[in-house]
Amino acid sequence: MSTPSSRVAAEALDAADELASLRDRFVLDDDGPIYVDGNSLGRAPRSTAARLQRVVEEEWGRGLIGSWPDWIERAGLVGDRLAEHVLGARPGEVIVGDSTSVNFYKLVIAALDARPDRRVIVTDAANFPSDRYIVEGIAAQRGLTIRHVPDDPEAEDIVKALTKSDVALVTLSHVSYRTGAMLDLRGMTAAAHEGGALMLWDLSHSAGAVPVGLEEHGVDLAVGCTYKYLNAGPGAPAFLYVRSALQSELRQPIWGWFGTSEQFAMGPTYEPAFGIDRFQVGTPPILGLAAVDEGVALFAEAGIDRLRRKSLELTDLVLARHAEWLVGHGVEVVTPRSPSRRGSHVSFRHPDAWRICRALVEDAVIPDFREPDVVRFGLAPLYTRFADVWDAMDRLRTVLVEQRYESFPQERSRVT
Amino acid sequence: MSTPSSRVAAEALDAADELASLRDRFVLDDDGPIYVDGNSLGRAPRSTAARLQRVVEEEWGRGLIGSWPDWIERAGLVGDRLAEHVLGARPGEVIVGDSTSVNFYKLVIAALDARPDRRVIVTDAANFPSDRYIVEGIAAQRGLTIRHVPDDPEAEDIVKALTKSDVALVTLSHVSYRTGAMLDLRGMTAAAHEGGALMLWDLSHSAGAVPVGLEEHGVDLAVGCTYKYLNAGPGAPAFLYVRSALQSELRQPIWGWFGTSEQFAMGPTYEPAFGIDRFQVGTPPILGLAAVDEGVALFAEAGIDRLRRKSLELTDLVLARHAEWLVGHGVEVVTPRSPSRRGSHVSFRHPDAWRICRALVEDAVIPDFREPDVVRFGLAPLYTRFADVWDAMDRLRTVLVEQRYESFPQERSRVT
Repeated sequence: MSTPSSRVAAEALDAADELASLRDRFVLDDDGPIYVDGNSLGRAPRSTAARLQRVVEEEWGRGLIGSWPDWIERAGLVGDRLAEHVLGARPGEVIVGDSTSVNFYKLVIAALDARPDRRVIVTDAANFPSDRYIVEGIAAQRGLTIRHVPDDPEAEDIVKALTKSDVALVTLSHVSYRTGAMLDLRGMTAAAHEGGALMLWDLSHSAGAVPVGLEEHGVDLAVGCTYKYLNAGPGAPAFLYVRSALQSELRQPIWGWFGTSEQFAMGPTYEPAFGIDRFQVGTPPILGLAAVDEGVALFAEAGIDRLRRKSLELTDLVLARHAEWLVGHGVEVVTPRSPSRRGSHVSFRHPDAWRICRALVEDAVIPDFREPDVVRFGLAPLYTRFADVWDAMDRLRTVLVEQRYESFPQERSRVT
Repeated sequence: MSTPSSRVAAEALDAADELASLRDRFVLDDDGPIYVDGNSLGRAPRSTAARLQRVVEEEWGRGLIGSWPDWIERAGLVGDRLAEHVLGARPGEVIVGDSTSVNFYKLVIAALDARPDRRVIVTDAANFPSDRYIVEGIAAQRGLTIRHVPDDPEAEDIVKALTKSDVALVTLSHVSYRTGAMLDLRGMTAAAHEGGALMLWDLSHSAGAVPVGLEEHGVDLAVGCTYKYLNAGPGAPAFLYVRSALQSELRQPIWGWFGTSEQFAMGPTYEPAFGIDRFQVGTPPILGLAAVDEGVALFAEAGIDRLRRKSLELTDLVLARHAEWLVGHGVEVVTPRSPSRRGSHVSFRHPDAWRICRALVEDAVIPDFREPDVVRFGLAPLYTRFADVWDAMDRLRTVLVEQRYESFPQERSRVT
């Protein structure tokens, strides 16, 4: 498929798009702004409010504690659906609950405790802040060393970082929140294993955007967010994956009652459940799980491979319009151009990135900004149209050519 | 007010009850079962589904990332409401998010790190399992000692346990999930302080049932659940309280990005926020917080003191009917009789407790069972009527007198 070179051609692609009808499944107004920030917060499925109403009024309101036999299975059930339709994992390998950060904490400690003689954690300084801070905190508390590989590393960087056999854990984001670079998940996992380390992936910017193939690539551990491409709502419960072969040897540090095999037996001592349930902590967030389930259901319909094909076509269009319109306007594409090395967002660098974002919002395009100088266009193939991308790039061109951003203040708001 | 001695008198109390109209604010059917398990899972407020719909369709669906300036304050805002209307704490002392168990973990470690030379944690063996397990896990990981005080202890038990100046933390449940006993929050907090320890209360079974007066009683640390008396839904986000004077000296172990002062600045190192925000971890659960807010709103209307008065009248009625009807039928009340020593549920012990619960459910009364031999009647003054209590006790009498429970199997289901 060739990248459209006119708005009419972009519209024609939308007309032929077999995924196009899924856009109608989201809450949106056709005269609303162009939303290219689905990588920060995905749109709301239309079905979610009705599902929540059923959960509140029927399951909770009338079912009351009689709903527990269903609820008790739900974190695993939603996890299994996510495993099947999004993550390429097996049943019983994924659980949904807690925040991405709490899940990340649990798995970092589980991994470190499984390699007690090794005192080094490998990551990159460009990793998502919450992951970096949590690693920093655990390293400080345990007196461990953090070894940084270059930002957006290659597999050979991992090999080099592991030569001394002192690394317990390698942890990286599959797709960089800032640059949009997608790392070599298979190669780096293999490199970590070669060096005797466990590998923990943060899939927040790839789950729902690219096939991650956790089983196929022999991934040990992963966490990720469901409120980005998975459209489960702000602060929705996150997921946690542990390869089944590792589950019985790993222990997580927060010994909550839902991590036991029989939480309602309330026995005298903590006995971790046999499978993935041991990575749960407290009572599962039933309303949040319902919203995750609605988000995941759309992936079951769309298919992650078809979504990835469209996503690449969308990011191709961004790159093509950049080459055609924006060269010479001080906007650098920082996202790798190779299809195998990019996720579903494209990041631009410009010294006035903050003001450019403000000017775009004024022009009814919603991108986002990342410190210090990055504009991100996140393209969610479930609802982003080719014509949207065309128009967003066109408006970016206008903002730059006419230097419209110069009328906006430099001061950042707290929330960016 | 005297305890009603007939069903007609109970109905008269309902007719005169100034809180009675609040019952209409909950999802329920007048011909539905009598629900005496609000201490396990509170009923659904009628307003919750509509509020969630607004959050999903307006704030999230149409507001998209433009809602973040509101959302970023929400965990603290809902916490402030809970502080004011339920907990007797000051603004900026309560935050809502994560599960009770995760919050408990954070505060246990924060307290231990603030008393690094002390190697003992004091608790009771009857504490809620998740709290016991988490303490067990942390003690195992750090090589600490757990010292048990007697179940449902008195303040003098705390004094005795602290004589060696080796205790970093005392942690207890304010109201026992099993016996319904309410501990001497003020006296035990003072005893812990006298012994140089910090005190962490689990308020899961008291928040929303009794005034806890955290500021008045000088409480250091507290956590609690919002899905029991606070009616926020199964697995709703929990709360966490830290006395303002302690906030700057305490650090929690999970260094997530929402614990920093400027999470969207995404700086190179973790800098904990100044106030209660440092006890947050990941992105706040916006849907769950909306449900908590709806639950708390009813307390702002009802007033916790009025609710407590009605709660004591309801539990008085249980005790009076037990004395009148059940003595000699092998059912022992394990909840203390003194009003100052009971919460809002009454626990009965009987060797056939499991089967009695099954027989009650068949007779349209929903209590709950706790291993090995406890039947609990939880009375939620927002929606439990005096006539409900009368009828529930009357049906319990029938089940016992006619030994109806004998036709039910002994085998427990997994979820009780």
